[in-house]
Amino acid sequence: MREAIEEYGANPGRGTHALAMRASRVLLETRTRIAELIGGVNPSDIVFTLNTTMALNQAIQGFVRPGDHVICTNVEHNAVRRPLERLKQTIGIHVTYVETDMNGEMDLRAFRDAFQSRTRLVVCNHSSNLLGSILPIDRIAEIARAKGAKLLVDAAQTLGMYPVDVNRMGIDMLAFPGHKGLLGPQGTGGLYISPEIDLDPLMVGGTGSRPESVSQPDVRPDKFESGTPNTPGIAGLNEGVKFVLHESVENIYTKEWTLAHRIMEGLARLKGIRLFGPDFGKPRTGIVSFLLDGMDASEVAYRLDKEYRIAVRAGYHCAPLAHAAAGTLESGAVRASVGAFTTEEDADELVRSMEDMIRRMDRR
Amino acid sequence: MREAIEEYGANPGRGTHALAMRASRVLLETRTRIAELIGGVNPSDIVFTLNTTMALNQAIQGFVRPGDHVICTNVEHNAVRRPLERLKQTIGIHVTYVETDMNGEMDLRAFRDAFQSRTRLVVCNHSSNLLGSILPIDRIAEIARAKGAKLLVDAAQTLGMYPVDVNRMGIDMLAFPGHKGLLGPQGTGGLYISPEIDLDPLMVGGTGSRPESVSQPDVRPDKFESGTPNTPGIAGLNEGVKFVLHESVENIYTKEWTLAHRIMEGLARLKGIRLFGPDFGKPRTGIVSFLLDGMDASEVAYRLDKEYRIAVRAGYHCAPLAHAAAGTLESGAVRASVGAFTTEEDADELVRSMEDMIRRMDRR
Repeated sequence: MREAIEEYGANPGRGTHALAMRASRVLLETRTRIAELIGGVNPSDIVFTLNTTMALNQAIQGFVRPGDHVICTNVEHNAVRRPLERLKQTIGIHVTYVETDMNGEMDLRAFRDAFQSRTRLVVCNHSSNLLGSILPIDRIAEIARAKGAKLLVDAAQTLGMYPVDVNRMGIDMLAFPGHKGLLGPQGTGGLYISPEIDLDPLMVGGTGSRPESVSQPDVRPDKFESGTPNTPGIAGLNEGVKFVLHESVENIYTKEWTLAHRIMEGLARLKGIRLFGPDFGKPRTGIVSFLLDGMDASEVAYRLDKEYRIAVRAGYHCAPLAHAAAGTLESGAVRASVGAFTTEEDADELVRSMEDMIRRMDRR
Repeated sequence: MREAIEEYGANPGRGTHALAMRASRVLLETRTRIAELIGGVNPSDIVFTLNTTMALNQAIQGFVRPGDHVICTNVEHNAVRRPLERLKQTIGIHVTYVETDMNGEMDLRAFRDAFQSRTRLVVCNHSSNLLGSILPIDRIAEIARAKGAKLLVDAAQTLGMYPVDVNRMGIDMLAFPGHKGLLGPQGTGGLYISPEIDLDPLMVGGTGSRPESVSQPDVRPDKFESGTPNTPGIAGLNEGVKFVLHESVENIYTKEWTLAHRIMEGLARLKGIRLFGPDFGKPRTGIVSFLLDGMDASEVAYRLDKEYRIAVRAGYHCAPLAHAAAGTLESGAVRASVGAFTTEEDADELVRSMEDMIRRMDRR
């Protein structure tokens, strides 16, 4: 990122001078690496956005038409739910939320039964940002395809941390963040759009290509990337993806799964801790959500930060329906997350801190 | 930016831990500084975007309704023209392009005559990105207000380089880049939205506020800033705005105006150079556009880069109508830009290089 800012702070695809060319190259390189990571797609089918939310809005607003029926799950993030609920009001679409149980497991029969004659789109996360559970995307894709609907997957919790292959899994659109599993900076994200899908761009404007035309060029990725891109951020993302490809997603997943279980085992032994999400031993991401009986989730988070210097998030995590599924709509939950650089010592520190907090609570 | 990435890479407005709070603080600080820079507005009326194009799309798509009439100029960037042309097709609006002459001067009588009973919005740049001319925003605002229309100003070429006071000038919405006059990094920008204006958000999703609600919160800036913001980029923008406030826009403007004139005077003495934009001595930004008789604009740019190591842009600069106004629709133009860190030596170097290029061309 420092190199991008100090050495070639120029606008890719605009000027033809050496600095602009260097900026163009870093965008193409990053696109190519992400294309490889998600199963070898055409790099031009990957477009960069400000964040996952923008990618999801681009996909949903760009695809859905008046009268469409859309199916999603009840553990979707507000970045999926709010765009859908708004379209219900503004252009008149219909949305069915398929229930998952409190461990995040989806009833595929209920999903199949939710299809209607006008179902054009299925939207679901690959993994719940509250529960850490993994949805069976290949099965969901198979059903959607058989019913003639397209599948948009929110990979906010998985890309770079859990294997994703859009072709093998049957994913038509994949929205992803740059700053989570891909280890890039905040302010980056993207959307894979299958060549078979035609979307209206969320925004239009200068693209560097066909400047004389009053209409947005139809060529990818330009069509979806109007205005000056976040070249320094994408340069950072490039390094993150490089790291992930080098370590391999499989190794990162194994490491995070193991650490999450280390935390779960430690917490499960403590008095008054309630854990959410998949059972021990099942596939899951590095998210561990829990509640402590007798103490507010927000107080647990506050004390972990102030007294133990551990950063967790308390609250609803922008996914109220997931909390309804987990039975934590009143209380929210405390969410701890492990990442590619978390150590066993970090995991143990969280368990020890909760143990200490509980001991001190008992003494009061 | 390094501090943001290395020391507090957390999500502002989400967690309550110390790192998230620090991220929140840098956003508020930047918002407050920009609010001061544009004339002392409420910081919450400033929203951050990926770039100016996103800000303009937010303003235009969020404000214009079916049947509206919109007035803009013929020197608008494609970031204004393409959203308007698309809305003509999709929801049925009417657009009038008011002509400016080849120096970028606008006929205010023609502008006044363009109003219709359904004119709800005027969109114009503060300064043309091709010509460097400055439009009389206060006069335009006065006319728009008298006619009951709102005014959206594209300050891509002016904020940080030419004084802007939204209250004094009568601007209802102001779109601006982070990486030009504000000296921040690429991938940042924003939109000022007057408290009297109600916009539909371009995208909706998680905002950290009111997570339990299925609809987007109505509170600013959250309403327009869904998903993870570009905290590292905004931290960089914060430092840029700090610098601009410290130097003062007036001093930066005087410096850039003087350097632009130094280049213009130097180039005007050379054989075969045609200059575009305002006459000598008039207000203008630091943009100097020109053509060399007998050589393509793109070749001039290529040779300046390769042989003289000077980065300029050749082509249409995403503003085809401006080229039509300037009579350069066939040829494009070479655009040199000075900035807050350009020196007299840099300016002279460009003139000397063009002189040398012309001498060598004559010899062929």
